Amino acid sequence: MSESYSKKNLTKKSDRFSDWYTDVILKAELADYAPVKGCMVIRPYGYAIWEGIQRFMDERIKERGVENAYFPIFIPEKFLNREKEHVAGFAPHMAVVTYAGGEELKEKLVVRPTSETIMYEMFKEWTHSYRDLPVRINQWNNVVRWEKRTYLFLRTSEFLWQEGHCAHVSHKESLDTVDWALNMYIDTYQKQLAMYGIAGRKSETEKFAGAQQTFTYEILMPDGKALQGCTSHDLGQNFAKAFDWHVQDDKGEKLFPWQNSWGFSTRSIGGLIMVHGDDQGLILPPNIAPIQAIVIPIPGSSDAVFRYAETVVAQLKAQQIRVKVDARSNESAGFKFNKWELKGVPVRIEIGENEFRKEILTGVFRHNQQRTEIKPYEIQALLTDLQQKLFERHKEFTEKHTHIADTYDVFKEIMSTKRGFIRALWCENPACEKKIKEETKASTRCLPLDTRDQNGLCISCGKPAIHQWVFAQAY
Amino acid sequence: MSESYSKKNLTKKSDRFSDWYTDVILKAELADYAPVKGCMVIRPYGYAIWEGIQRFMDERIKERGVENAYFPIFIPEKFLNREKEHVAGFAPHMAVVTYAGGEELKEKLVVRPTSETIMYEMFKEWTHSYRDLPVRINQWNNVVRWEKRTYLFLRTSEFLWQEGHCAHVSHKESLDTVDWALNMYIDTYQKQLAMYGIAGRKSETEKFAGAQQTFTYEILMPDGKALQGCTSHDLGQNFAKAFDWHVQDDKGEKLFPWQNSWGFSTRSIGGLIMVHGDDQGLILPPNIAPIQAIVIPIPGSSDAVFRYAETVVAQLKAQQIRVKVDARSNESAGFKFNKWELKGVPVRIEIGENEFRKEILTGVFRHNQQRTEIKPYEIQALLTDLQQKLFERHKEFTEKHTHIADTYDVFKEIMSTKRGFIRALWCENPACEKKIKEETKASTRCLPLDTRDQNGLCISCGKPAIHQWVFAQAY
Repeated sequence: MSESYSKKNLTKKSDRFSDWYTDVILKAELADYAPVKGCMVIRPYGYAIWEGIQRFMDERIKERGVENAYFPIFIPEKFLNREKEHVAGFAPHMAVVTYAGGEELKEKLVVRPTSETIMYEMFKEWTHSYRDLPVRINQWNNVVRWEKRTYLFLRTSEFLWQEGHCAHVSHKESLDTVDWALNMYIDTYQKQLAMYGIAGRKSETEKFAGAQQTFTYEILMPDGKALQGCTSHDLGQNFAKAFDWHVQDDKGEKLFPWQNSWGFSTRSIGGLIMVHGDDQGLILPPNIAPIQAIVIPIPGSSDAVFRYAETVVAQLKAQQIRVKVDARSNESAGFKFNKWELKGVPVRIEIGENEFRKEILTGVFRHNQQRTEIKPYEIQALLTDLQQKLFERHKEFTEKHTHIADTYDVFKEIMSTKRGFIRALWCENPACEKKIKEETKASTRCLPLDTRDQNGLCISCGKPAIHQWVFAQAY
Repeated sequence: MSESYSKKNLTKKSDRFSDWYTDVILKAELADYAPVKGCMVIRPYGYAIWEGIQRFMDERIKERGVENAYFPIFIPEKFLNREKEHVAGFAPHMAVVTYAGGEELKEKLVVRPTSETIMYEMFKEWTHSYRDLPVRINQWNNVVRWEKRTYLFLRTSEFLWQEGHCAHVSHKESLDTVDWALNMYIDTYQKQLAMYGIAGRKSETEKFAGAQQTFTYEILMPDGKALQGCTSHDLGQNFAKAFDWHVQDDKGEKLFPWQNSWGFSTRSIGGLIMVHGDDQGLILPPNIAPIQAIVIPIPGSSDAVFRYAETVVAQLKAQQIRVKVDARSNESAGFKFNKWELKGVPVRIEIGENEFRKEILTGVFRHNQQRTEIKPYEIQALLTDLQQKLFERHKEFTEKHTHIADTYDVFKEIMSTKRGFIRALWCENPACEKKIKEETKASTRCLPLDTRDQNGLCISCGKPAIHQWVFAQAY
């Protein structure tokens, strides 16, 4: 494929953040705009990141006893209409098939925005007794929520995700799954993507359409806006009742199963790019990087150098390091350095005559451009260390940009200048939430899980408020 | 989930093949009818088979240097119209989105029936020089080809597959990929699914809409009909020209890339079920079976027996055998035997007081109901042997039902009675092919790769014919 890895043209992250974001995605070949309104193409380098996320999560999903399955992409409109809040939430974003097989359809089919309704229709058929519970299903698929403007990874009409759907005999068991899913997502962000965030519960206004409670991991981006990283929903018995899905409990009585659903999407890749990248391009944390180390024998070196490079690659592969060698003769060393920096490979290994003679390697770390002499057997440990450093860096950034606002004036001042997360007392009245959002663009992101009760006053209306919520302008 | 594994109600394969097929899929919980016309739900047990196929093929695809990516599910109608044969072939099966985001779309969007057109539009943007070739892309996704009646796995409006799309500087390189893909599919069938078949080239009538040549693996089903197991297409330069996609060759001149595409779908699971199953239900070849061995401690046995069963399970797991224990106390031994037979688990391991005392296992093989005393360390070898036996059994069946017809009378006689594959001389005139199909239901399946030139006469028109083609009634 055509390669034009010139960093000369790369917008600076520090100058115009939003342009930099799009630019780096296109130039590093993570994704591209599709010739279909609102859609994107995920190119191999971007898709490999998604496959890394899938591998990590799929193993955990299976360990939990949740099984993968596949449900149709088309949902009859009437199913979506059954849960009132659900349809109200999704109706504006639906893509609808009206013609198929050369005929107008009698029943219009919605391209799934999420699969609660079609799944629960089937769960209802498959279960009759409490002994048939829990039902534990996950699917990796594509969903469609219509958007007019594409913002690569972050806002596209179609995206990829996993959606888990479980149903249990008790609310307690269901909540346990909701909690497990949220923690799996937090692990994915922290251990794979090196992204810090705040875990908490969504407000009534911000929760999923049809849920009783929604939990989230909110992540602060370098521009001071927050990204909702995932959601895990306690659906209570809402959908079971809307679908009249009940089984016999152990006393022979009607039991409406307690349900939950949880999703994690390719949106996460957008966050990954923003959080770690710099003026030179992407910076990928080693655990998720499709290529962890790029070996570059200096062009023009002797054959022995190239042979030595091959030996080094074999040594790294034996340590399960995802390594690639760039030994093409038609490009300069400088071009190659630029290219792999732009693509965010955590460590570059340069090999020339000097390295060959001394049997050493020269490593250059992507995140700090530090150049150092390293041994092949040290790389795995260096990558582990680097993963941790990137996480700590983002954690420090987030903490530095998390403010406490005791008054609405301070709140407004922060939002109009530096932004970031704001912890502030709110009375939980949606009217105040709406007013704050209209006046400052900041919406409630979550009530942190580690919150403590206080005796205070709402920063908006001055009425009693017992919790500090986290606010931010959302992506 | 609800379990009703009564084999009493299972239709006999020998009695009514088609009803048995549907029955066994529903009862073994491989799949279910969806509440959307023409669609199915792939349940966890069926999906695990698909995941097995994916694991096997994805590794080979990556080894070949083909990279996974993701392209949009929506294709603008005008793209499909660019290659005339292509659109003619798919138009009757298109599902079309006409409304989205609450508005009527100016440009209708087709839910992808296959992704040639949307991919090639992008490849065109990404490549400028012969140095940018080859392009090697694969995607695992869902596609939609509208059907009114569902035949589980074999004919559904939506199905899952992989579609590989490569483009090369020369026809020779492209043909090499076409050949490689076909061989990967044959390996998947033979080594994983234990299914024998005939590899060959499709006739002009039967080839893919827009291809220059199509290659296939045709598999004989127990009812004497043939299943097209996969396809690998040599697209020549047809699509490149239709899309005006050209790059500069090494002399600075216009080069239209040589393309190929190749696909393998969940249809294969339909064939797997048909080929191996019997009156007791599924029979899964060990390499693809989600559960290779089911350990059943006889209900009512002493605690020591159950502990011994756990030890056995650990021993088998240590050998990488996919094993499950069914130790539930609320079901009888007979119920459990039936259930796992219906689900086609290759070997059942019964453990009672006798087995515990003597430190042996009683194994019962699914495919022949043979009961034998086995040691844990023997199971891996027994499974390998069994895999081979199932393949040989299907190969023998196919050979026994492959006939040579020297005259049209013999051809018609075979088709009206026992069916199967028929090898017969055909002049390659589509008119004869059409007439034969109308009169006997048999279509050309392929020209086998190992064919030899002959000096003969077409069984239909009596004009010169140099090749024996394989005919059969197709699924």
